[in-house]
Amino acid sequence: MKVAYLGPVGSYSYEAAKRYFDKDQELVACDTIDDVFEAVEENEVEFGVVPVENSIEGSVSTTLDYLLKSQVYIEKEIILKVEHYLCAKEEKKQILTIASHPQAFSQCHDYLRKNFKQAKLIQVSSTSYAARLCAEGEVDGAICSPFAAEQNNLKILAGPINQDNNYTRFFVITKSPNFKKGDKNKTSIIFSTYDKPGSLYKILAIFNLYDLNLTKIESRPAKTNLGEYVFFVDIEGFVDEEDVSDALKVVQRKSTFFKLLGSYSVILPDE
Amino acid sequence: MKVAYLGPVGSYSYEAAKRYFDKDQELVACDTIDDVFEAVEENEVEFGVVPVENSIEGSVSTTLDYLLKSQVYIEKEIILKVEHYLCAKEEKKQILTIASHPQAFSQCHDYLRKNFKQAKLIQVSSTSYAARLCAEGEVDGAICSPFAAEQNNLKILAGPINQDNNYTRFFVITKSPNFKKGDKNKTSIIFSTYDKPGSLYKILAIFNLYDLNLTKIESRPAKTNLGEYVFFVDIEGFVDEEDVSDALKVVQRKSTFFKLLGSYSVILPDE
Repeated sequence: MKVAYLGPVGSYSYEAAKRYFDKDQELVACDTIDDVFEAVEENEVEFGVVPVENSIEGSVSTTLDYLLKSQVYIEKEIILKVEHYLCAKEEKKQILTIASHPQAFSQCHDYLRKNFKQAKLIQVSSTSYAARLCAEGEVDGAICSPFAAEQNNLKILAGPINQDNNYTRFFVITKSPNFKKGDKNKTSIIFSTYDKPGSLYKILAIFNLYDLNLTKIESRPAKTNLGEYVFFVDIEGFVDEEDVSDALKVVQRKSTFFKLLGSYSVILPDE
Repeated sequence: MKVAYLGPVGSYSYEAAKRYFDKDQELVACDTIDDVFEAVEENEVEFGVVPVENSIEGSVSTTLDYLLKSQVYIEKEIILKVEHYLCAKEEKKQILTIASHPQAFSQCHDYLRKNFKQAKLIQVSSTSYAARLCAEGEVDGAICSPFAAEQNNLKILAGPINQDNNYTRFFVITKSPNFKKGDKNKTSIIFSTYDKPGSLYKILAIFNLYDLNLTKIESRPAKTNLGEYVFFVDIEGFVDEEDVSDALKVVQRKSTFFKLLGSYSVILPDE
């Protein structure tokens, strides 16, 4: 069985895939989120692993757009704690150039300003690519995950050096809607409403009526007509619960567009 | 007067700044969104220009987080149409390596697959940086804006080559809340609710009561206690309208946290 993920080896998506799938699965690195979705849709792989929120490796909006237009379902949610470390090939070498993703630099801003004010920061497209550049000797240091450091035989010099406790959510996607219940479950849907005041409010009234808690709501332009929006909503609960299934039936009837993305359980980070 | 923007020269933020400010303003390039907010907060510049939605240059979430924690206000919204072009130094040279931002590659996926299936794609941190690399001869081609091509003396070989009509929203931020009304106005707020079913619904009931249309709603973790959320909401209308000001007063009273980010008019892209 093959699993596509947003590469390269050592990326957070790779780490998420390793958390969920056992060793027998063949992991296939993809260059972009698009490629992961396409590999799943075209049956080249059975599963895909993509970042969906607060990622430092790719755009959440790309994932949301593909969830809207692709025929795939959410199989599982994986939450990883994102911690950045300063890594290098040798421990004593002076650090004059540091590579990382712009958002990782952003999250390590205070540490860098205090300790490496003179260093040249090289912005690259992912923290795992930064680790590879460092391993190849192109830069003196990389800001990356311990996982990426290990994959590239780098030593950890300091960390975690980021300011906030950051978490990234990943979805495992697949073509067959084979929803499995776990301890902590969520159900994700997309719907559109008429473009007039109060139409979103009327849909939320349905969730309120069935005592359902929304854990996420996000609006995005529908890209059909200007002013039309689609809403991405996550609710607590599994589709086999009566409140959930009844509420979804009414939402589907009262919205102009409706799509069930999946009902799934969540893997939380080790604390 | 100085204006900080997310650089480098030729970036979409630069283009947005050029649309709003006249030639007399000194534009200051910043490496990160953090630096733009800090320059404004520490009075090094009077205004800042940052991407806020669907950007291909930086994380929206970084901007949202800073709007939450910084003492800045929104002065103006600028919407730019994002169109990608394939550019190079000379017209006839064979294109074997192409640099761009991962999201730009993603948006030009069909064109690249059809025309440059064999080319090596080099992922860099911004489309304007890709243009600079191309100008320096490091890569054969760059996918960037016509603006970045011009700034780097590149020739446009093809385009627009992206699939969707893409728009990016920018905010002009400043420290003094000097709200100016225009033709098409919006008001942006942040609020938190209690973490229990129906609490968001109760707040939205207020907007419904005053006939206000929400153009955007997005939830984000509050980063205080797990399970607490803040909501970013944009509504149509200006704070001097009675329905708007009355609704905001009630929302402020019924929420656990409330912040008025600004009331501002919108600059739409030339069509």
